[in-house]
Amino acid sequence: TALSADATRDVSGALNAVLADIFALYLKTKNFHWHMSGPHFRDYHLLLDEQGQQIFAMTDDVAERVRKVGGATLRSIGHIARLQRIPDNDADYVDPQDMLAELRDDNGALALRMREAHSICDEQGDIASASLLETWIDETERRIWFLFEAGRRGNA
Amino acid sequence: TALSADATRDVSGALNAVLADIFALYLKTKNFHWHMSGPHFRDYHLLLDEQGQQIFAMTDDVAERVRKVGGATLRSIGHIARLQRIPDNDADYVDPQDMLAELRDDNGALALRMREAHSICDEQGDIASASLLETWIDETERRIWFLFEAGRRGNA
Amino acid sequence: TALSADATRDVSGALNAVLADIFALYLKTKNFHWHMSGPHFRDYHLLLDEQGQQIFAMTDDVAERVRKVGGATLRSIGHIARLQRIPDNDADYVDPQDMLAELRDDNGALALRMREAHSICDEQGDIASASLLETWIDETERRIWFLFEAGRRGNA
Amino acid sequence: TALSADATRDVSGALNAVLADIFALYLKTKNFHWHMSGPHFRDYHLLLDEQGQQIFAMTDDVAERVRKVGGATLRSIGHIARLQRIPDNDADYVDPQDMLAELRDDNGALALRMREAHSICDEQGDIASASLLETWIDETERRIWFLFEAGRRGNA
Amino acid sequence: TALSADATRDVSGALNAVLADIFALYLKTKNFHWHMSGPHFRDYHLLLDEQGQQIFAMTDDVAERVRKVGGATLRSIGHIARLQRIPDNDADYVDPQDMLAELRDDNGALALRMREAHSICDEQGDIASASLLETWIDETERRIWFLFEAGRRGNA
Amino acid sequence: TALSADATRDVSGALNAVLADIFALYLKTKNFHWHMSGPHFRDYHLLLDEQGQQIFAMTDDVAERVRKVGGATLRSIGHIARLQRIPDNDADYVDPQDMLAELRDDNGALALRMREAHSICDEQGDIASASLLETWIDETERRIWFLFEAGRRGNA
Amino acid sequence: TALSADATRDVSGALNAVLADIFALYLKTKNFHWHMSGPHFRDYHLLLDEQGQQIFAMTDDVAERVRKVGGATLRSIGHIARLQRIPDNDADYVDPQDMLAELRDDNGALALRMREAHSICDEQGDIASASLLETWIDETERRIWFLFEAGRRGNA
Amino acid sequence: TALSADATRDVSGALNAVLADIFALYLKTKNFHWHMSGPHFRDYHLLLDEQGQQIFAMTDDVAERVRKVGGATLRSIGHIARLQRIPDNDADYVDPQDMLAELRDDNGALALRMREAHSICDEQGDIASASLLETWIDETERRIWFLFEAGRRGNA
Amino acid sequence: TALSADATRDVSGALNAVLADIFALYLKTKNFHWHMSGPHFRDYHLLLDEQGQQIFAMTDDVAERVRKVGGATLRSIGHIARLQRIPDNDADYVDPQDMLAELRDDNGALALRMREAHSICDEQGDIASASLLETWIDETERRIWFLFEAGRRGNA
Amino acid sequence: TALSADATRDVSGALNAVLADIFALYLKTKNFHWHMSGPHFRDYHLLLDEQGQQIFAMTDDVAERVRKVGGATLRSIGHIARLQRIPDNDADYVDPQDMLAELRDDNGALALRMREAHSICDEQGDIASASLLETWIDETERRIWFLFEAGRRGNA
Amino acid sequence: TALSADATRDVSGALNAVLADIFALYLKTKNFHWHMSGPHFRDYHLLLDEQGQQIFAMTDDVAERVRKVGGATLRSIGHIARLQRIPDNDADYVDPQDMLAELRDDNGALALRMREAHSICDEQGDIASASLLETWIDETERRIWFLFEAGRRGNA
Amino acid sequence: TALSADATRDVSGALNAVLADIFALYLKTKNFHWHMSGPHFRDYHLLLDEQGQQIFAMTDDVAERVRKVGGATLRSIGHIARLQRIPDNDADYVDPQDMLAELRDDNGALALRMREAHSICDEQGDIASASLLETWIDETERRIWFLFEAGRRGNA
Repeated sequence: TALSADATRDVSGALNAVLADIFALYLKTKNFHWHMSGPHFRDYHLLLDEQGQQIFAMTDDVAERVRKVGGATLRSIGHIARLQRIPDNDADYVDPQDMLAELRDDNGALALRMREAHSICDEQGDIASASLLETWIDETERRIWFLFEAGRRGNA
Repeated sequence: TALSADATRDVSGALNAVLADIFALYLKTKNFHWHMSGPHFRDYHLLLDEQGQQIFAMTDDVAERVRKVGGATLRSIGHIARLQRIPDNDADYVDPQDMLAELRDDNGALALRMREAHSICDEQGDIASASLLETWIDETERRIWFLFEAGRRGNA
Repeated sequence: TALSADATRDVSGALNAVLADIFALYLKTKNFHWHMSGPHFRDYHLLLDEQGQQIFAMTDDVAERVRKVGGATLRSIGHIARLQRIPDNDADYVDPQDMLAELRDDNGALALRMREAHSICDEQGDIASASLLETWIDETERRIWFLFEAGRRGNA
Repeated sequence: TALSADATRDVSGALNAVLADIFALYLKTKNFHWHMSGPHFRDYHLLLDEQGQQIFAMTDDVAERVRKVGGATLRSIGHIARLQRIPDNDADYVDPQDMLAELRDDNGALALRMREAHSICDEQGDIASASLLETWIDETERRIWFLFEAGRRGNA
Repeated sequence: TALSADATRDVSGALNAVLADIFALYLKTKNFHWHMSGPHFRDYHLLLDEQGQQIFAMTDDVAERVRKVGGATLRSIGHIARLQRIPDNDADYVDPQDMLAELRDDNGALALRMREAHSICDEQGDIASASLLETWIDETERRIWFLFEAGRRGNA
Repeated sequence: TALSADATRDVSGALNAVLADIFALYLKTKNFHWHMSGPHFRDYHLLLDEQGQQIFAMTDDVAERVRKVGGATLRSIGHIARLQRIPDNDADYVDPQDMLAELRDDNGALALRMREAHSICDEQGDIASASLLETWIDETERRIWFLFEAGRRGNA
Repeated sequence: TALSADATRDVSGALNAVLADIFALYLKTKNFHWHMSGPHFRDYHLLLDEQGQQIFAMTDDVAERVRKVGGATLRSIGHIARLQRIPDNDADYVDPQDMLAELRDDNGALALRMREAHSICDEQGDIASASLLETWIDETERRIWFLFEAGRRGNA
Repeated sequence: TALSADATRDVSGALNAVLADIFALYLKTKNFHWHMSGPHFRDYHLLLDEQGQQIFAMTDDVAERVRKVGGATLRSIGHIARLQRIPDNDADYVDPQDMLAELRDDNGALALRMREAHSICDEQGDIASASLLETWIDETERRIWFLFEAGRRGNA
Repeated sequence: TALSADATRDVSGALNAVLADIFALYLKTKNFHWHMSGPHFRDYHLLLDEQGQQIFAMTDDVAERVRKVGGATLRSIGHIARLQRIPDNDADYVDPQDMLAELRDDNGALALRMREAHSICDEQGDIASASLLETWIDETERRIWFLFEAGRRGNA
Repeated sequence: TALSADATRDVSGALNAVLADIFALYLKTKNFHWHMSGPHFRDYHLLLDEQGQQIFAMTDDVAERVRKVGGATLRSIGHIARLQRIPDNDADYVDPQDMLAELRDDNGALALRMREAHSICDEQGDIASASLLETWIDETERRIWFLFEAGRRGNA
Repeated sequence: TALSADATRDVSGALNAVLADIFALYLKTKNFHWHMSGPHFRDYHLLLDEQGQQIFAMTDDVAERVRKVGGATLRSIGHIARLQRIPDNDADYVDPQDMLAELRDDNGALALRMREAHSICDEQGDIASASLLETWIDETERRIWFLFEAGRRGNA
Repeated sequence: TALSADATRDVSGALNAVLADIFALYLKTKNFHWHMSGPHFRDYHLLLDEQGQQIFAMTDDVAERVRKVGGATLRSIGHIARLQRIPDNDADYVDPQDMLAELRDDNGALALRMREAHSICDEQGDIASASLLETWIDETERRIWFLFEAGRRGNA
C-alpha cells in the first residue's frame, strides 16, 4: 500500500484494540440478550439482538481493513481477552435496567476509542479507514441514544 | 420444563462446554481466513468464510437451547476462555496446508464432544436438544470431510 | 405403511389429542392477542401474534402426519371441543400478566403431552413422527421460556 | 370511535357470528382436504387447501375489525361452537362429490349472512366494516362458483 | 370527469383539509417518535414509526385523488399550516403516556373529518373517493384502538 | 348466489358491455404504443404500455365477476366486436398528440359506462361488483388525468 | 434495417396474420377457461389459464418484431377479426372434452402457420424473426401435446 | 470420524443401496410423468413432477452423507443398475391408474429399506444419518399417502 | 456523547435548519409533481417523484442524527415554517420550465447550507455528521445537474 | 404435429440417444464431484457441481421435446444403460487431473453427437428441436473450455 | 471443439471485430448519456442508459464465445481502438437529436456486421455462435427502431 | 455548484484521468479473466470476474461525479487511450501468476492516483468527491490484498 510502515503499525494497533472491544461488547450484549427477564423481556431481548447483530457486522470489516493496510489482526479468544478494555460481567443476575445502563456506558467507551483511532488514521493519511470509522461511530452513537432514552425517567 | 433439575444441570453443562468450543473454533477459523496466503488464497479464504459462517450460526441456537432447558449460558470472552478445550493458535505465520489440517482435527474434537453431549441428553430424556445436536454433528462431519479431502495427496 | 394396525391406532390417537390442544391453545393465544391492554399493549400483542403463528403452523403438519400413518384426523370444531384438554377462558377481562402466566402453564401442559406422544411413537417404531415431535417440543419450550421470563420480577 | 353504542353492539354481534361460521367452515374445509380420496385426490386436495387458506385469512381481519369498532370478539373453541350456524360433519367417510356439494351450500349460507351483516353496518353507518365485507363476499362467491361448476354434469 | 363543477369544488375542499391534517399528524407522530423516552422507549418508538409510515402513505394518494377529480391540491408547508385543524405540540418535554393519549385524540378527530368528507363524496356521487376513504378510516380506527389500549390501566 | 335472476341478467349485461369496451380500448392503446413516433417516442411509448397493462389487468377480473353472479361472459373476438362501443382507429398515421387526446376521450367514455354499471349493481344489491367498479373507476380517472395534462398547453 | 422492402412486406404480412390468430386463440382459450364445468373444473380451468398466459405473452413480442423489420402491425379488434383464420366459437355450452379437442386443433393450425411464416423469414434472410418463431413453435407444440394426451382414452 | 470401520462399511452399504433405489425410482417417476395420458393428464403429470423433484432432492444428500461417514458412494449408471432393487418398467403403455399403483408399491418398498438402514445407523451409533433418514421416511410416507388415496374408489 | 455542549447546540442548530429546508423543498417538489402539465407531463412528473423520494429519505436520518448528538429536533408543521429558508410557491399555475428552474435554485441553496453545516461539524469534531452530509451533498448536486441540463437550450 | 412419421422416428431416436449420454455424463460428473480430493478439492468440487447442475437441467427439456414431436422417451436406468455411449468409470481412485481430462473428452463426444442430432433435425424440418440443440451445444462447449484450460500447463 | 482450424480463425476474427464495435458503441452511448441536455434530458438520459446496459451485456458473452470456439479475444483498450469500425465522437457539444441520429446509424452498421458474422458462422458450421447472433441482431434492431421513431417528425 | 471554476477544472481533470485508468484496468482484468489457464483456472477466472465487476461498477459513478461538479467527462475509446496511464498488455500468453502480479501493481498505481485526486478534492473543498474516493480506495486496497496474498510463497 501507499502507507508508511509507521502507518501500518499505528493504524493496525488502533483498529485491533477497537476490534477486541467490539468482540467483548458483542459477547456482553448477547449475554444480556440471553439472560434478560421481567415485563419488558421481549422488547429488550429484541433490542439487544438488533444491537448484537449490528456490533457483530463490524467484526469482519475491521479485521479485513487491518489486512488491507498491511497489518496482522486478531487470532483467538485469548488474543481478544488480552486486548479488550471493555470489562466482562459474569454476574449470575443483572437487573434489566442495569443491563441497559452498563451497555450504554460500554458503547460510550467504544465510541471514544473509535474517535482516537480516527485521529491516528488522520495523522497517518489512512483516509479509507477514517471513512469507515465515521459510519461505525454513527451506529455506536445510535445505540447509545436508544440505551440512554430507555433509561430515562420523566424529564431528566 | 418437564426436565429434572439434574437434567438442567447436566445438559446445560455439556452444551455450554460445546458452545465455548464453537466460539474458539469460530475465532480460529476466521484467524486463518484473515491470514491465508499462497496460490490457493481465494479458494481457501472462501472455504473458511463458509465454515466460519456455519459455525457462527450455531452459537445463538446452542445458547438459547440452554435457556429453554432452564440453565444459564455463557456470559463473556473470559467465560469462553475458561471453558474452551480447542486450543488457540496465535502463531505469526501458519502454512496454508497446516491451517486446514489443524482445523480438521479441531472439528474432529468438536464432533466427539457433541456426541458426548448427545449421550447426556439421551440419558436425561432431553429429546429436543438431542435432535438439534444430530444436525450440528452432520454439519461438523461435512466440514471434516472437506478439510480431509483438501489435505489428501494422491490415493492416500 | 410399514406400521402395525396398533401403531396406527395409538399414534393417531396421541397426535389427534395433541392437535385438539394445539387448536384450543391457538384460539386462546389469539383471544389474548385480540383483547390485550395496558402500557405493554403493542409488545405483548406482537408476542402473542408470533406465538399464535408458530402454533398454527403445526396444525396442518400434525393432521397430515396422522393421515400418513394411516389414521383419520380431526373433523370439526365440535371434534376439537370433545378432545381438547387445554381449558377455554371466556372471561370478559384478563389482566395482561395473568394472560402470560396462563399461556405459560398451557404451553407447559402441551409440552408434557407431546412428550407422552413421543414415547408412544418410540414404542410403536414410528421414527418419523417422533422426529417431528422433537422440533415441536423445542418450539414449545421456547414459548414457555419467553412467557416465564416476561413474568419474572427481579432475581426470582 | 364515532359510532354509537348501538352500532358497536349490533356490528360486533353480526361480525362475531360471521367469524364463528368462518372458523367452522375452515375446519370443515380442512377436514375434507385431509380426508379426500379418489382419482381427483390431488386436484381437490389442493382446491380445498386454497379455499381453506382464503377462509383462514379472514379470521384475524374480522376479529380485529370488531375490536376497532369497540366490541369484544371470540375467545375460545367453545365460544365458536356456541355461535356457529354452519353444521359440523364428523362422518367417517364422505364421498368427494358430496364434500364439494356440502361446502358449496355452506359457503352459500356464509355469503347470505355476510350480506345481512352488511345491511347492519349500513344502518349503523359503519362504512369501513361494510367495505371489508364487500371484498369477503366477492371471495365467497368465487368459492361458490368453483364448487358449483366442479359439481355440474353436462349442460345442467 | 363525469363529476359536476360543484362536486370538484366540494370534494377537493374536503380532501385537501383532510390532507393538511394528515401532514400535521404525520409531523406530530414523528415528533413523538423522535423524542420518546422511558422504559418503553423502543416499543413506543417503533409503534409511532409504524403509525407514521401508515399516515405518510396516504399523502400522495389523497393529493392525486384531488387531481383526478379535477381540483388543485396542497402546495407548501405554509398552505398546510393555514388548513390544518390538528394542533401542533412544540413542548420541550411530553410524557410518553401523554404522547399516546394526544395522538389517540388527534386520530379520533381525523376519523371524524374523514367521515364528513365521505358524506360529501356520497352527496356528489364521487364513489371512487368514497371507497378510498373507507380504507383510510379503517386504518385510522386501527391506530386509535392501539393507542387506546396502550393507555388503559386495568379493566377500565 | 343470493342475487335474483334479474340481477344476474342486468349486472352481467352491464359488465359484459364494459368488458368489450375494455378489450377495444386495450387494443387501441397498444396500437398507439406500437405506432408511436416523434421526440417524445420513449416517454409516450412507456406511458401507453403502463396504461395498456392496467387496462388488461381488469379483463380477467371483470369476466370472472360475471361468472360469480351466475352469468356468461364474452366468448370471442367477434363477440367483442359486436358489443364494443369504443370505436376502432385503423388509420395509417396518427399524430402523437392526437393519440393522447383520443385515448383521453375513450377513457372518459369508459368511466361513464362504469358509473352506469355501478348504478345497476346498486339497484340490484350486488355490492361486491359495485365495490370492484369503484377501484376501476379510480384507475380510469387516473389515466384520464395523465392524458389530459399531457395535452395541456400553458395555463389552459 | 438491412432487409429489402420485399422482406419488410412479406415478413410483416406473415407475422401480422399469425398475430391475429394468436389474439383469436387467446380469446377462445379464455372463453373456455371462464366457462369450464364438470369434475375436472379446477384442473382444466388452470390448464387453460396457463396456456392463455403463454399465448398472450407472445402478442407484444410479435407486434414489436413487425415494427423492428419496418412494418406496421395490428390496430384494433376489427383488424384482428378481418385477419384471423382461427374460427370463433360462441356456443352457449361446450363439453369440456370438446373444448380441449378444439383447442388442440386450433393450436395445430397455429403451429402450421408459424412454420409457413418461418419459411418466409428464411427466404427473406430475416434470421432474427426466424429464431423467435422457433421458440414459439416449441411452445405451441407443448400446448398440443398437453391437449392431445388429456384427450386420449387408453392406449389409443 | 468417530465411527468405527464397521460402521463406515455398514452404513455406507445401506445408504448406497437406498441411493440406487432412489435413482431407479426417480427415473420411473419421470418415465410415468413423461408418458402420462387420459383426462387426468395435467393433474398426474404435475403430481409425478413434484414427487420426482422431491425424490431427486435426496440424491446429493444421501451420497454426501456416505462421504461424510468415510465411505465411497455410487459412480455410474451401471453401478446403480447393479444395486437397485426397484424394478424397471419399460412397457410401451401403462394405464394411468396402474402407474400410480406401481409407484405406491415402489415407494412402500423404499420406505421399508430406509427403515432397515435406520436400524443399521442406530446399531452403529451414526445418529446424524439416522436423523436424516427420519425426514426422508416422512416424505416417502407422504408420497405413499397421495398415491394411495388417488387410487381409492369409494369408501374402500 | 463525546461532543461538548457547544457542539451539541451548534450541530443541532445547523442540522435542524437544514431539515426545515428539506421538508419545505419536499413539499414544493411534490407540489410541482402534482400540478405538472404539458407534453413532458409524465417525464417531469416522474422526475419530481424520484427527487421527492430522495429528499424525503433524508428527513428521518437528519432528525435522528440530531438526537444522537444530544439535541432536540423539529416538532411540527409550524416549527418547520418558522425555520425554513426555502420560500413557498403557492401560485395557481407555474410553467413546467419555471418549475424546474425554481427547484434547481432551491436545491442549489440547500447544497450551500449543507456545506455550511459541514463546516460547523468539522469545527466541532462531529465527524459522523460530516460524513453523512457528504453523501447528501452528492445527492443534492445530482438533482441540480438533472434540473440544470433539463433547462438548457442548445450549447448554452 | 406437422412433422412426418419419419421425422418423429429419426428425431426421437437421435434425441433419446443424446439423453442417455446426458444421464451417463451427469452420473460421472457427480461421481467425480463426490470423490474429488487434493489441494484443489473445493474448487473442483464446485466446478463439477455447477457442470452437473447444467447437465441435469437439460434432461427434462430433452425428454419433453421428444414427447412434443410425438415420440416416446427413456423409461428406466436400464434403458439408459442400453443406449448410452459415454462409458462408465467405476475406478476406486481417479486422479483429479485425470477426472477433468476424462470429462473434457466425454463432453467433446457429447457435443459431436448433438451436432449429428442437429443435422437430423435440419433434414426433417424440426426447427424447434434444432434451436434448442444450439443452446445446449453452446453450453457443452463452455464446459469443454473450462475443463481444457484447467488442464493446460504453461503455454501449451 | 468439432470446428476446423479455419472455422476457429474466421469465426474468431468476425466476432472480435464485432466485439470491438460493441465496446466503441458502448462508450459513445454512455458519452451521450453523460452529456445529454435539453427538455428531453431525463427521457433520453434513461433511453441511452438502457441501451448502454443492453450493449454492455453482450461483451462478456461475445468474448467467451470466441474462447469456446478455440480463439483468443480482445486484450486491451488499444486492441479495441485498432479493430473498431464505429468512429469516436469527441465533440464538445452534440445536439440531442444529432446524438440519437448518430447512434441510429452506428447501430445500423453494427447490425450489418453481425449479419456478416452470421454468414461466416453458417459457412463454418458454427451453429451455436449463429444462434447467439440472432438474438443480438434482434436487440440491435430494437435499438434502431427506438432511435428511428424518436427522430421522426410527423408522418415522414 | 458552489465550487469555483478552478475546482471544476482540477477535480474534473483528476477524476477523468482516474476514470481512464479504471477503464484500462477493467479491460486488462477481463483480458486475463478470458485467457486464464492452468490448474487454478476456475478460481482465478472467478477472482478476476469479481474484480472486473467491482472495477466496472465505479465507471458510471466517477463519470457522473464529474458532471455533477460541472465538468465534461470521457467520450470514447480513443479518449481513454489518450489519458490512460495503466499500460496495455497484448501478449499472446501470460503466465497465471504473472497475471496476478501485474494486476497487483496496476491496482497499486490506481490507488496512488486516487489518493492524489483526493488531495485535489480536499484543496478545492469538494468534500463529496473526496468521500466517494475514500470508498473506492478501500475497494482498491482490498483487490491489492487478494492479489498480493495469492502471489505469496511461504512466509515471505
